[in-house]
Amino acid sequence: MMLQESNRIGRIAMLFALADAGETLTTPLPNGWRYCTGKVGSMNSQKIVAAMETAAKSSHIIETDVYRETHALYHAIMEALYGVTRGQVQLGDVLRTVGLRFAIVRGNPYDRKQEGDWLAVALYGTIGAPVRGSEHEAIGLGINHI
Amino acid sequence: MMLQESNRIGRIAMLFALADAGETLTTPLPNGWRYCTGKVGSMNSQKIVAAMETAAKSSHIIETDVYRETHALYHAIMEALYGVTRGQVQLGDVLRTVGLRFAIVRGNPYDRKQEGDWLAVALYGTIGAPVRGSEHEAIGLGINHI
Amino acid sequence: MMLQESNRIGRIAMLFALADAGETLTTPLPNGWRYCTGKVGSMNSQKIVAAMETAAKSSHIIETDVYRETHALYHAIMEALYGVTRGQVQLGDVLRTVGLRFAIVRGNPYDRKQEGDWLAVALYGTIGAPVRGSEHEAIGLGINHI
Amino acid sequence: MMLQESNRIGRIAMLFALADAGETLTTPLPNGWRYCTGKVGSMNSQKIVAAMETAAKSSHIIETDVYRETHALYHAIMEALYGVTRGQVQLGDVLRTVGLRFAIVRGNPYDRKQEGDWLAVALYGTIGAPVRGSEHEAIGLGINHI
Amino acid sequence: MMLQESNRIGRIAMLFALADAGETLTTPLPNGWRYCTGKVGSMNSQKIVAAMETAAKSSHIIETDVYRETHALYHAIMEALYGVTRGQVQLGDVLRTVGLRFAIVRGNPYDRKQEGDWLAVALYGTIGAPVRGSEHEAIGLGINHI
Amino acid sequence: MMLQESNRIGRIAMLFALADAGETLTTPLPNGWRYCTGKVGSMNSQKIVAAMETAAKSSHIIETDVYRETHALYHAIMEALYGVTRGQVQLGDVLRTVGLRFAIVRGNPYDRKQEGDWLAVALYGTIGAPVRGSEHEAIGLGINHI
Repeated sequence: MMLQESNRIGRIAMLFALADAGETLTTPLPNGWRYCTGKVGSMNSQKIVAAMETAAKSSHIIETDVYRETHALYHAIMEALYGVTRGQVQLGDVLRTVGLRFAIVRGNPYDRKQEGDWLAVALYGTIGAPVRGSEHEAIGLGINHI
Repeated sequence: MMLQESNRIGRIAMLFALADAGETLTTPLPNGWRYCTGKVGSMNSQKIVAAMETAAKSSHIIETDVYRETHALYHAIMEALYGVTRGQVQLGDVLRTVGLRFAIVRGNPYDRKQEGDWLAVALYGTIGAPVRGSEHEAIGLGINHI
Repeated sequence: MMLQESNRIGRIAMLFALADAGETLTTPLPNGWRYCTGKVGSMNSQKIVAAMETAAKSSHIIETDVYRETHALYHAIMEALYGVTRGQVQLGDVLRTVGLRFAIVRGNPYDRKQEGDWLAVALYGTIGAPVRGSEHEAIGLGINHI
Repeated sequence: MMLQESNRIGRIAMLFALADAGETLTTPLPNGWRYCTGKVGSMNSQKIVAAMETAAKSSHIIETDVYRETHALYHAIMEALYGVTRGQVQLGDVLRTVGLRFAIVRGNPYDRKQEGDWLAVALYGTIGAPVRGSEHEAIGLGINHI
Repeated sequence: MMLQESNRIGRIAMLFALADAGETLTTPLPNGWRYCTGKVGSMNSQKIVAAMETAAKSSHIIETDVYRETHALYHAIMEALYGVTRGQVQLGDVLRTVGLRFAIVRGNPYDRKQEGDWLAVALYGTIGAPVRGSEHEAIGLGINHI
Repeated sequence: MMLQESNRIGRIAMLFALADAGETLTTPLPNGWRYCTGKVGSMNSQKIVAAMETAAKSSHIIETDVYRETHALYHAIMEALYGVTRGQVQLGDVLRTVGLRFAIVRGNPYDRKQEGDWLAVALYGTIGAPVRGSEHEAIGLGINHI
């Protein structure tokens, strides 16, 4: 059950989130893996969660009507938000806002088949006061089995 | 005080942390910026913090005998650890261990000089049970003015 | 000041919260103890707290105009919510909702009179996405001296 | 994907944890479900986690050499500990100790097969100062898909 | 880089926050130091943060258009709020409200010039249910380099 | 049940903790109130808690063999530590140490007798790296009914 060099799902998701418009990953995604990317900006943490859930479902990364898949994604999103918010998963309540690119990747990063699929949710963007320019970068990654 | 495209200090630090042996960044570091990278693995969070502080001081990223620089670095490290630990900054106490690559970058990411220097601390590696292979990836980023 | 087998206030409160309609506790409540039960469902954590405070006051579990009693109950409720929310006492902000049964019990669980009255707040129900069926169970217990 | 009345995995696990010596559950465990129970007492949170992981593996609730199963259990244990510790997953560090009964149950609580197996980890016992009698009850429940 | 007895910025800020109307500090503020005080009451944590940021800017404690100064103040405010809220930086969400006096002080508390300016944010007031009298005192202090 | 101006137990405790050697409070303690003060320094949070519990018991602020009094004090201490640690109640684990003066005050701060006694635990001192001078001030206050 070793992590495989070429299948590091978290690293791949983070490289997608960090990629600027026009940049592409130099390493191809492993066979059978799926991913989606998107952008979301808000002071409202509820909207951030909803935007990623919607993207994952409409891109068929997870199955909409299987709760275990929604549950796996939800916890991966929450873990990624811990990295972005660093202490309290709050945005507008403490007068800050985020602008984020996200990438959600699904695949088996281990060398044994029975490890099944895992999800990686990567976030990259800015966090700061609701004033243009008063912000710095923030990053988060959540990983879960599905 | 806009963040400059080519000077995104968090993105640069994260790309350093994600870089495998032999990989180099395609974009050069802005003039006058400094950085260091390293590796640390432990169940002991104290050792993780100490390893990064020691690296930053011995690489002259921060000035050893100026407390405000140590203070800035400490908080950037703690914020990066929130992303890695996602909820409680604890490792061995909750029976988990980490193996991390870190990158610490210092420079001014803004377009105005009076913003001065900032620090980015990026972490990439694995977290898991103290059993080989029972682990997944983890990422954290902390940013602070110095 | 030993906890008495038959007076385990937290266990009793939790059995009340777990009881389905029509089920009754097999062990009688100790002499002089008081309790109330109720239901509340919301994405709004403020409403959850308010529903329990109102029930405790209208059932005369606590005295309405004595602040120390309100203070004791408030902290017991918050501790029970930690168990239900597991990390951040947030519901709608992170796009989740709860449906809970609660039980509040007041009595002295210790073998010595000077320990006075204590409060147990038990919660049992479901937590999940605001989509029918996308939920799992959650439990919390808070205990405080009064 | 509704939770089934008779298959409420969290409620069942909690009733196991609450059961005194000699008490048995009145409702039989659903077909194909597995469970184990045990006791652990310590000021050392690492030992609490390890005791439950060992019990789950030696009772074949989870497969020892499949990481996704260990990962699912680990997060269920951590969530149960949030309920017991209510704020900071720390014991001896903040001068407190626990004595806990635990129950770990595995099965599918939903009405559709594709929801697969879930794990419930229930904890019941006491938490307090390392002085006999200076303690009150504590409860926690963690649930995860596996 | 020793803290100087007469320049303990946190102690000075807290004494300002504790001072009743008409009381004055017996020790003069060190040369070149700046401070402001104010009051704010709300169930809305966003308003608490905003009131202090506005006061600090309009009193010229920090420079409005330098992000590093806003960033330093923001983190000092958040740290002070941890002391007031003790666990979750939430007010109305968990049905509580605050009435606070605040003091923000800027100066160099160390004996060496290169430590530069630091900020102390002190809060003193009451926290409690949104019912007159159902409240107790709360205090917080945040300190940051600027 | 209003807080009385002259009986603000948190303010009084904080002024005790802030008082330098030789300074005395200008306002006398209300009739029947008790207090103790002390000092403790450590990287070990367990020792901080123990030092305050021991002081409170040996000064007869709380009754040693009544658990409800120990319980009230414990939670007041923990709340004061939140203010000092601001996020995670950890010291040595995250490579920091504290040197604190503490004051524990017991009395009824309200205008009605039935509010009974309350406890205030105030902490003032420094927190920082385990290097002389690499530290800044920190403050915490916890209040609880007893």
